[in-house]
Amino acid sequence: MKDLTQQILNGDIRSIARAISIVENNAPLKEPLLDELYPFCGKAMIWGITGAPGAGKSTLLDRIIAAEREQQRRVAVIAVDPTSPFTGGAILGDRLRMQRHALDSGVFIRSMASRGYLGGIAGATRDVIKVFDAAGYDLIIIETIGVGQSEVEVVSLADMILLVLVPGLGDEIQALKAGIMEIGDIFIINKKDREGAVKLKTEVEYVLRFKNESSAPPNPVIMTAATLNEGIAEVIAAAEQYFQYLTDSGQLEQRRRQRLRQEFYDIVLTKIQQVVENHYNLTQKVERLVELVVEHHEKPYALIEKHLNSILKEIEQR
Amino acid sequence: MKDLTQQILNGDIRSIARAISIVENNAPLKEPLLDELYPFCGKAMIWGITGAPGAGKSTLLDRIIAAEREQQRRVAVIAVDPTSPFTGGAILGDRLRMQRHALDSGVFIRSMASRGYLGGIAGATRDVIKVFDAAGYDLIIIETIGVGQSEVEVVSLADMILLVLVPGLGDEIQALKAGIMEIGDIFIINKKDREGAVKLKTEVEYVLRFKNESSAPPNPVIMTAATLNEGIAEVIAAAEQYFQYLTDSGQLEQRRRQRLRQEFYDIVLTKIQQVVENHYNLTQKVERLVELVVEHHEKPYALIEKHLNSILKEIEQR
Repeated sequence: MKDLTQQILNGDIRSIARAISIVENNAPLKEPLLDELYPFCGKAMIWGITGAPGAGKSTLLDRIIAAEREQQRRVAVIAVDPTSPFTGGAILGDRLRMQRHALDSGVFIRSMASRGYLGGIAGATRDVIKVFDAAGYDLIIIETIGVGQSEVEVVSLADMILLVLVPGLGDEIQALKAGIMEIGDIFIINKKDREGAVKLKTEVEYVLRFKNESSAPPNPVIMTAATLNEGIAEVIAAAEQYFQYLTDSGQLEQRRRQRLRQEFYDIVLTKIQQVVENHYNLTQKVERLVELVVEHHEKPYALIEKHLNSILKEIEQR
Repeated sequence: MKDLTQQILNGDIRSIARAISIVENNAPLKEPLLDELYPFCGKAMIWGITGAPGAGKSTLLDRIIAAEREQQRRVAVIAVDPTSPFTGGAILGDRLRMQRHALDSGVFIRSMASRGYLGGIAGATRDVIKVFDAAGYDLIIIETIGVGQSEVEVVSLADMILLVLVPGLGDEIQALKAGIMEIGDIFIINKKDREGAVKLKTEVEYVLRFKNESSAPPNPVIMTAATLNEGIAEVIAAAEQYFQYLTDSGQLEQRRRQRLRQEFYDIVLTKIQQVVENHYNLTQKVERLVELVVEHHEKPYALIEKHLNSILKEIEQR
């Protein structure tokens, strides 16, 4: 265990992969391992990248990784994919993305399925971030398809969020974009050679005027054409400058503390839930409640209220 | 209260709207109201419609409503939208959708924002379904943009799921489709005049061969062009036939009982969480834990483990 921790701190790839398996599978070693790694966390810069399907996030990410590698930075990517109905794993997979970085030991790309983790994908992502952080990666990037509730939660585990937009999608997708605009720090208009790109930029800047306080620097809005490698340097410069502002203004620390708060809250609630499930045998009790409702026509809420006190009593006596 | 219940059972539109507000806002009346309505639920047929953004779900839904109205069926729609960053409400809104049905008293369309409900959007949707069911709507349709974890959960509250696919979208969207294929009962290939529609149908049928048991009828795969009103009658015929199969085979009852199980489970856990939050003052305690970690470098999991027993003791003494 001390040995595994030491290997992770040394940046050993196989040990990092093993640690990720441990936290993903919620193995018994998970909690002591994370406690060991915890003092070494907090040095990495964590970015979230999100946007509607088809916005070109993967290509953009590929270009960003290449640019960061030129600066000798070590980069870890957590790509959150929809869950395969057949394997239960992530669908797009590590291999499909950013293939050319596969042989670069300074890049670690990990796909995670969006479902199937105890405590949800947000909890699992949070733990994998800690492994990468302790292992000394300079930049950790979380990528999600940012159109669902839990996908927004996952990308919000970052210090700073890059939101990728594209011109020329339908109404529904426009609405999705609006739904996630509040969480963006850096706005990227990708496929800038497409019709409507400049108009989209103007619209985004207009909406952002209502969001920003006067004292803060405006959220950068950058135009890119990722497939042509255009605008990438500007994205990185803007992101670094904005990160500096977050650091200097104390916002970075605020955000990190807020995340820690949320993490503790989630862990405590999950643990209480586990106690309820295991020691109280909740599944069996719920089955009995369902029978009382279906067969004896009892009123659901009244019934639950009646049983809640005895449930809480039994938890205590675990 | 008895009066409100009676008005809802009579199908009074204003009372239904009021009941929806009560359950959405988690008002004190919510639990007794739902207990009153509960005995009158279970008569409606509940469909879920989902698919990637841009698949043409709203147009298809508009056509389905029109066809159902011709059969004199009363239809209620719950459309789950992304949350507006400005109003906190649903973005696409009732007015944008299916406008021509607005004056038809046999159609009730309700948009719900995907965030901001205690217990999540799934819990809120579940309660609104009960209101519509008790109010005597024959068909209740839940519509989501089915690409996120919680959106899949919401649409899974239906008795039967219609999955809308379209040819010619990118890899990422193909993967999303695969991620939600497991939950579909009826598969609709919309925009059938587009290149690749027949190929997509073949692919879907191929994938479905691995899903189906030999005893069950195959999941219908229907081609439509919603904007041209083509294939709608086929969708409705297939859906009704499949619903009949679900009923006759006992699967409908199984699904409904499983939903009730999940609902009870969620309610019990939410209530325990509320007790923890209110009576134990979890927010303050978590703040103290965060300080111990940030300022005194204690190990997070070890610290939580130490405090968990006292937390559980205090819950008991509420």
